[in-house]
Amino acid sequence: MLDRDQLRRSYDAVRRACRADWRSDDAGQAIIDLAVIALQFLDTDCDRVGLTSLAHGKEYVSFERNGVVARPVNRAYFTDDWEVIAQDWRRFAIGNLNAGQIERMMYTVALAPCLAIELFNRNDKKSPATYFECMVGHLFAKSLGIEPTRSASLPVAGRRVRMTMDFLFETAEDLPNIHLPVKMSTRERVVQAWSHQRLLDSAYGSGSYQGTLVAFSETKLDARKGEVVEICVPDQWLAYQTLLARMERIYYFDTPVRYQELTNNFGELIDIKPFHTFFTEIAPVAGQ
Amino acid sequence: MLDRDQLRRSYDAVRRACRADWRSDDAGQAIIDLAVIALQFLDTDCDRVGLTSLAHGKEYVSFERNGVVARPVNRAYFTDDWEVIAQDWRRFAIGNLNAGQIERMMYTVALAPCLAIELFNRNDKKSPATYFECMVGHLFAKSLGIEPTRSASLPVAGRRVRMTMDFLFETAEDLPNIHLPVKMSTRERVVQAWSHQRLLDSAYGSGSYQGTLVAFSETKLDARKGEVVEICVPDQWLAYQTLLARMERIYYFDTPVRYQELTNNFGELIDIKPFHTFFTEIAPVAGQ
Repeated sequence: MLDRDQLRRSYDAVRRACRADWRSDDAGQAIIDLAVIALQFLDTDCDRVGLTSLAHGKEYVSFERNGVVARPVNRAYFTDDWEVIAQDWRRFAIGNLNAGQIERMMYTVALAPCLAIELFNRNDKKSPATYFECMVGHLFAKSLGIEPTRSASLPVAGRRVRMTMDFLFETAEDLPNIHLPVKMSTRERVVQAWSHQRLLDSAYGSGSYQGTLVAFSETKLDARKGEVVEICVPDQWLAYQTLLARMERIYYFDTPVRYQELTNNFGELIDIKPFHTFFTEIAPVAGQ
Repeated sequence: MLDRDQLRRSYDAVRRACRADWRSDDAGQAIIDLAVIALQFLDTDCDRVGLTSLAHGKEYVSFERNGVVARPVNRAYFTDDWEVIAQDWRRFAIGNLNAGQIERMMYTVALAPCLAIELFNRNDKKSPATYFECMVGHLFAKSLGIEPTRSASLPVAGRRVRMTMDFLFETAEDLPNIHLPVKMSTRERVVQAWSHQRLLDSAYGSGSYQGTLVAFSETKLDARKGEVVEICVPDQWLAYQTLLARMERIYYFDTPVRYQELTNNFGELIDIKPFHTFFTEIAPVAGQ
């Protein structure tokens, strides 16, 4: 039986390990430790509830405890077997998983702690977002072998101005750096990702930083009706992408149907794909 | 004794009149009617409370009812005499007020309804913001003699995409149009204003739309301590202004101390001034 303090300690351990060294095995271990206790908690202390999916071709469920229903869970990607997940996390580190296994493992490790955190405190929106940032930051840092910075130094009015950004990876000479905004969902705030990209383009020249946006999903649960919808604004994204700045790649853990269609129709303008494909194209992401 | 339904009806009347015709006398009348009942309510049903101002050279008070303390009120600009305000609103329409009178009248008419709304429902953040948008939209529409639109049509991928913006005023030929973002305070969301400006610049050419940002204040009340601070991010603003897009003018109803300093130090880059000065420079704002 998980208690709130144990969950909090495990979550704090993730943040601490990432802050100390984003690339480290300690960070990876803290992440899988948290995911495992979250999965055990979901399995033993929570009830699974069915949801009605209004997203074409997708099935969603969730978990309930003390009358609180957590965010939607895509059945196709979620695995509740914590032993398999813990084993796959280790096997992944040595390159021993196929694409489908990577997809399910990443989705589960990203989501399980968020579900557990909100079942303990439904008003805590910040901790799930922070955990997701930690996980994605760690995976990029480890894959690229580069420690990220969390702010840019911009030349403004003859001096340097520091500006907080999600992650910046400074690669070797001659290779483009990477600007990595990370969002659990992009509602409302996503213009910031493109704006930061534009600031970097203006300050350092287009192409100095490749924009790589990582998002989890765009699902929204109507708790009363038990219905799941995906909130998408494809026209806005096209406008940002063509008139504000260019995101070289956009990765989703659970790609929304309408953004998949956007890429199908405007693939030369905007490239949206499943997160797990990052691991088969690390070299081009790193500009290698 | 004001009741919640009366306040709601009066607020709805403002929205309805503005939607019907932003320039209309009906809109102006609905605004001053709401401001007057709000001022009467503050005067008769609420207690005035002193606050500790941490903003240099400013004094703040507020109003309290049933244990709820409303947002901070700058003593230098607020007038609680509703008869003077109602009279000044009429005199303003015929150009019969000096700068100081305009400043106090505008500040009071903008703020009083927001105070009343939050004293009835402290969780309602949307209605004060909507009212403020209505008031500023009406004043610009009436002053310029132009009905605004609330969205831009942007050329994207060979077709037109509609994008919601606060206000766009399409002026006569040869004059720059006006892009008017309106924010009660700019915390968190202000990057949107500069981003929209950049979208317009990219789509129609720099200078096609003059960016004019109107904000009320940046005060934040620590209710427990009764302290008022101003939340400002001058370095971010300079970065947006030089690397993202250019706001031609930025108006405040209660200019934050640090943004005043920003203009004092970087006046050629960023022009931040009291809202009432708009009325003495309508011609240049309209590009005339």
